[in-house]
Amino acid sequence: MDSFMQAAIDEARQGLAEGGVPIGSVLVHDGRIIGRGHNRRQQRGSVVLHGEMDALENAGRLPGAVYRQSVLYTTLSPCPMCSGAILLYGIPRVVIGENRTFLGDETHLRECGVTLEVLDDPTCRELMATFIARHPEVWNEDVGR
Amino acid sequence: MDSFMQAAIDEARQGLAEGGVPIGSVLVHDGRIIGRGHNRRQQRGSVVLHGEMDALENAGRLPGAVYRQSVLYTTLSPCPMCSGAILLYGIPRVVIGENRTFLGDETHLRECGVTLEVLDDPTCRELMATFIARHPEVWNEDVGR
Repeated sequence: MDSFMQAAIDEARQGLAEGGVPIGSVLVHDGRIIGRGHNRRQQRGSVVLHGEMDALENAGRLPGAVYRQSVLYTTLSPCPMCSGAILLYGIPRVVIGENRTFLGDETHLRECGVTLEVLDDPTCRELMATFIARHPEVWNEDVGR
Repeated sequence: MDSFMQAAIDEARQGLAEGGVPIGSVLVHDGRIIGRGHNRRQQRGSVVLHGEMDALENAGRLPGAVYRQSVLYTTLSPCPMCSGAILLYGIPRVVIGENRTFLGDETHLRECGVTLEVLDDPTCRELMATFIARHPEVWNEDVGR
């Protein structure tokens, strides 16, 4: 397992331990994690802090040039909001744990020139599948259903 | 002036008074404001709380059905991140103060079936034009340049 995806999974597990949606993400620049985060809907009542958004927020204010040389790792396919944040900041590459339990806006990201790598990781799949089965109402709310 | 756009402008002005980027937004459901906010980059060091995102965050957790019957008012054309949030939550209509100082992801929103109304409001234009002239580095950072 890639150590950066492992860090994203660690974030997802931390979120789960807090009673939250188990999705984690890390922002990597120059071979180093500069931001890490996980979904905060349950923990903070947040509707904007998906895992990817939380990682970006925790990375803090950065010059545009840093984003344009960064890679975002996320345990789940990025939803339209997180995809939009990736496009806003010009992050050129996203590594995705899995996209079977939820397929985000990958088509739009690719059309806009973002390189996506989907790992189809069984740990990421199992984290989401179990959570969705146990808490479908939270999950549906998290993706606006 | 539409009272909801006036509320969004009031939010933008409050942001400016706090030393922030003057962009404001309100979420309206059933003829009532249920969330209001403004850009928080300067005030909180936030890279995700654009005006629209702050209004959604302040509206709190909502059933998907509420978003799908809501209108988002924003003083400035929504960037890719905010456009993605609009799509995630299925907000069907967005009223935009102006899109001359910055044109967001309006094409993508329209392609996805969102109804946009652009007011080309001189107050909204003047707020942004003045801020961009005075603080170009903050503005460029806010849109990932």
